[in-house]
Amino acid sequence: MINRVEISSDRIRNSNSQNGVIQPLLTDLYQINMAYAYWKSGKHDDVAVFDLFFRKNPFQGEFTIFAGLQECLTFLQNFRYSESDIEYLRENMPPTVEPEYFEFLANLTTEEVTVYAVDEGKVVFPRVPLLVLEGPLIVIQLLETTLLTLVNYASLVATNAARYRMAAGRKMKLLEFGLRRAQGPDGGLSASKYAYLGGFDGTSNVLAGKLYNIPVKGTHAHSYISSFSSLDDLHIDTLKHKETGEELSLKEASLRWRSRLADTLNIIQSEASDGELAAFISFAIAFPCGFIALVDTYDVLKSGILNFCAVALGLHDLGYRALGLRIDSGDLAYLSCIARASFTTVAEEYELDWFASLQIIASNDINEDTIISLNEQGHKIDCFGIGTHLVTCQRQPALGCVFKLVEINGEAKIKLSQDMEKITCPGKKSVYRLYGEDGHALIDLMHRTSEEAPSVWEESPVPPSIPGGQESLCEPSQSGTPAQDVLAERGTAAASP
Amino acid sequence: MINRVEISSDRIRNSNSQNGVIQPLLTDLYQINMAYAYWKSGKHDDVAVFDLFFRKNPFQGEFTIFAGLQECLTFLQNFRYSESDIEYLRENMPPTVEPEYFEFLANLTTEEVTVYAVDEGKVVFPRVPLLVLEGPLIVIQLLETTLLTLVNYASLVATNAARYRMAAGRKMKLLEFGLRRAQGPDGGLSASKYAYLGGFDGTSNVLAGKLYNIPVKGTHAHSYISSFSSLDDLHIDTLKHKETGEELSLKEASLRWRSRLADTLNIIQSEASDGELAAFISFAIAFPCGFIALVDTYDVLKSGILNFCAVALGLHDLGYRALGLRIDSGDLAYLSCIARASFTTVAEEYELDWFASLQIIASNDINEDTIISLNEQGHKIDCFGIGTHLVTCQRQPALGCVFKLVEINGEAKIKLSQDMEKITCPGKKSVYRLYGEDGHALIDLMHRTSEEAPSVWEESPVPPSIPGGQESLCEPSQSGTPAQDVLAERGTAAASP
Repeated sequence: MINRVEISSDRIRNSNSQNGVIQPLLTDLYQINMAYAYWKSGKHDDVAVFDLFFRKNPFQGEFTIFAGLQECLTFLQNFRYSESDIEYLRENMPPTVEPEYFEFLANLTTEEVTVYAVDEGKVVFPRVPLLVLEGPLIVIQLLETTLLTLVNYASLVATNAARYRMAAGRKMKLLEFGLRRAQGPDGGLSASKYAYLGGFDGTSNVLAGKLYNIPVKGTHAHSYISSFSSLDDLHIDTLKHKETGEELSLKEASLRWRSRLADTLNIIQSEASDGELAAFISFAIAFPCGFIALVDTYDVLKSGILNFCAVALGLHDLGYRALGLRIDSGDLAYLSCIARASFTTVAEEYELDWFASLQIIASNDINEDTIISLNEQGHKIDCFGIGTHLVTCQRQPALGCVFKLVEINGEAKIKLSQDMEKITCPGKKSVYRLYGEDGHALIDLMHRTSEEAPSVWEESPVPPSIPGGQESLCEPSQSGTPAQDVLAERGTAAASP
Repeated sequence: MINRVEISSDRIRNSNSQNGVIQPLLTDLYQINMAYAYWKSGKHDDVAVFDLFFRKNPFQGEFTIFAGLQECLTFLQNFRYSESDIEYLRENMPPTVEPEYFEFLANLTTEEVTVYAVDEGKVVFPRVPLLVLEGPLIVIQLLETTLLTLVNYASLVATNAARYRMAAGRKMKLLEFGLRRAQGPDGGLSASKYAYLGGFDGTSNVLAGKLYNIPVKGTHAHSYISSFSSLDDLHIDTLKHKETGEELSLKEASLRWRSRLADTLNIIQSEASDGELAAFISFAIAFPCGFIALVDTYDVLKSGILNFCAVALGLHDLGYRALGLRIDSGDLAYLSCIARASFTTVAEEYELDWFASLQIIASNDINEDTIISLNEQGHKIDCFGIGTHLVTCQRQPALGCVFKLVEINGEAKIKLSQDMEKITCPGKKSVYRLYGEDGHALIDLMHRTSEEAPSVWEESPVPPSIPGGQESLCEPSQSGTPAQDVLAERGTAAASP
């Protein structure tokens, strides 16, 4: 499962440009101190192996999605201290540091570093290395923090997104809306990128769309609605008919429909907001082929649904079909059912089948539990817009990846601890994912690289259910089966220890 | 309290350069959609006022520290869509969007926008606007998401840091160590910057040190210790005496001291790790004036403290003073007490007073509750290194700042909601912080800008304890008293409603 990764310039050219803050100084000072102490004590030629892994799945869950690999490779490829970096270090490290160390840093590259990695997007489990770095001890020490930063949050968000996808089901459309609440501007950008990797359908984040080619979606906010006080604020109320090109008043069409619909839907027309109607009409004129309206600025039941249906039918008179509505507050299950029932009534009353399947988008502080609860209550939502909880991973806002020395100059190394969980697994390892005959993954097998690789149909050296290990192995969510994955026969897997 | 902020180029020149991802497209698509709909419906000349505020203090606390202002101003100053931005929008917005809109965007600046803001670093409270933006509706709409992104996390981390500072007390040294667990690379960078604003003493993040002139601190990791197996790994063991310049063996001095100390401290010398000792000696040779050792790689009590004291006394023979040790696992209160007792014993036994006050640094998943609990248990720690919990704000990983339209063309606007908390406070407001005669802040007073400003000694129009309001107002943690703050007489503050 762990493959040697080529940091070829081809791969880099194909990759997206990287956030400028990802640079060699984006690290902890102690790495640079340690590198100096290694250098000073003559450890230039020491060759080390480090494992990057986590100890526990996030969110009390059973799996993690590995993400951030491409960013790591780009970082390694571009790794170079700039002149101003060296200048900063020279001024800020103790005066006892030898000047030759700064020359050493100025010329340092990652050329001699070999990276082994799990494919990005794979399902992974605790204690199995996601990245293995082999090369000069000094160089690898200098990479630790940045690699952890690039993997930790990426994998956390991808895993969170995959969990939302599992809760919402395959058919539900999931959009990431979290930029404004993310932890820093890049937190928002990373969230958009890795939520998409984890199974979301799109984002509201335009820059993420531009940089990573992710579908970008968006409607309007409450401020748009409240910027219109009445129908008098509607300076332009006409739209060209989609087929005939004739300029017609959407305002008049919508008002006509509102009167009829008030009876059909049993809503008191005078209680509906004219400002909201004006806002809907103007938005529909701007986006006649993509009309989606936010219906909860005043009152979903007394105003929003009626105004939306009126404008949607007005648009229909002019040859266009509305897309749907969004609800951002209140009892989402209940309101979505009423909205759907209204759509069905309109569809039947006016013989417009498509109206019954208008999209209902729900947002407002949705998390995994909300989705599960909405599923239990029964709802008619087609799409969730999810922000804060997805991007900040409120249930567990950090994945605890660590980067540990496991071998130096061919000798295995261990870190002991009073805390059993913190004891490392020594030595350079190979990792295989063993599959049963039916194609289902059974187990991840980890052994010393010096041991022989398992082969197809060979009995697995470990039973599929290790005490304290994972009971349920999941299929990779993305990416194909890597070359080194081994097909093991399920029936004979419970063999020698 | 809310001051008009000049976005002068002077201010910008003095400010630090900004992360490249902070750009106009770092926004939600719906802002660009809404701006088009405004543009299309002839709202070019509409003048709007938006408030940026939050509804609830984070962490179930009583205050928030406002941060992110400078980044907001830099963003506004540099606001310009690039050619590739326009190209991206042209390709990704519906074909019905008029080409002139893209020309409009290409020429758009924030010149006509006026910003009013609370000073960065001030203590602030719910519902009081932190930023007020006044200017063309279309332009301000396009700024919303980015401003929220820049204020939300910055203020959250600054507040979190201030809470850690309150828990730890003024004398404790607090260092931010969170980069590797932060939410994205910029999450780490923002955390370092705003934890410093909130009252931390430094960071491990070198780039934050370089960009923001924050003190950077660091020692070494467990991997440094475990890269040495025995004293044979010590290729260089000499160091020049600080005064005489004579090259002496720190290894021999440390070994001599270890034998003596084993008796003094009642520790079995043979149980102490020679690899750890070798690592400490090499690190001390690299940093003779700044020697701090991580003592928990093998066993703090059986190995770490003894080896540290041996090297510290060896260094002392060569004219240097060690700084202290770091403990990263186990019972921090207990281990710090044993370490301090050992230092005191050594200080007394060998008449080295300074040894008793060596620094004890503690890290390992520390949060606010850990600090409070350590205080209750009694400990001898001088410095906390705090990572994950500080930077990811695990208790509440997002501050819910919102950006709401409150006035358009001079007319106050409100957003209604079934959720009372979501109803906005309409109109353009002025905010004053009223102080009592003793200099303590009493209350934040918010009124329509058209109303007359309160003057010194005038009776406050609201009682200092408003029902449902804040009971305890805190002093600003940083920055001076702004010009518009008003000194009110405490005795007469409980006046007319």
